[in-house]
Amino acid sequence: MRKRSGPFWDGIEGRAPMPRAAATLGFEYIDADVEAGTIELAFAATEDFTNPMGNVLGAFVAAMLYDTVGPALLATLEPDQFQSTMQLNVSFLRPVRPGRIVGKGRVVHRDGDLVFLEASLTGPEGPVIATATATARVIALSQAPAAA
Amino acid sequence: MRKRSGPFWDGIEGRAPMPRAAATLGFEYIDADVEAGTIELAFAATEDFTNPMGNVLGAFVAAMLYDTVGPALLATLEPDQFQSTMQLNVSFLRPVRPGRIVGKGRVVHRDGDLVFLEASLTGPEGPVIATATATARVIALSQAPAAA
Repeated sequence: MRKRSGPFWDGIEGRAPMPRAAATLGFEYIDADVEAGTIELAFAATEDFTNPMGNVLGAFVAAMLYDTVGPALLATLEPDQFQSTMQLNVSFLRPVRPGRIVGKGRVVHRDGDLVFLEASLTGPEGPVIATATATARVIALSQAPAAA
Repeated sequence: MRKRSGPFWDGIEGRAPMPRAAATLGFEYIDADVEAGTIELAFAATEDFTNPMGNVLGAFVAAMLYDTVGPALLATLEPDQFQSTMQLNVSFLRPVRPGRIVGKGRVVHRDGDLVFLEASLTGPEGPVIATATATARVIALSQAPAAA
């Protein structure tokens, strides 16, 4: 198995603090298959994410999908690489109440530094609540501070 | 001028509490032109939204764009109507540091209950950091709890 190091694995394995944004979303690592390019995560959707009807606002659903496709790619990178998401396209399928939301992400195709990604979220009740596709590029870790 | 009532304007004008998700994003209403279908808002991006490089994670950029296109439409609706965003497509143009982020949203076209929307975000330094297009549908307020 490939050695798990670099900024993503350092955060997951406790050698670096969890990114603030991930903590805000209640990010929880479940499992990854680096060779297959798949990852499974969870998020803790709280009342702080809700609309007036008590559902999780789609804004935070989109945020969780962003933070699923990114890690799917990050988990596969070399220690001196990082990634920058260029585009994210979210489909909102069903409403969801606050609770534990599971995200599954996948690297669909990588062509050099260009990567196509997809992800889906499942709520506590079971059905898929939202899906996303994304495009990202692999960048040098040293370029990451200046990347979107 | 059309009377400003219903769940969106009640929140903006203090007759109802601000939605929890909006408060989490530091949502601030600036101005709207209901006839033109345009709205201007701001968000307070804090350190809680940042990636390891100190930039606002795109997850929260996407969340702010979601919470710009939605209000652009909500501001134009009747008091017994609400909206459900079906799709959101975000382009991430530039990184941004925490601070005040201004969102401009617009109803591009409405055909019955189907609505096409767009939005952009500008960071404290000036340039556009991200843009989005979205599709939404107008729903009865009574249906809103079961809408995504």
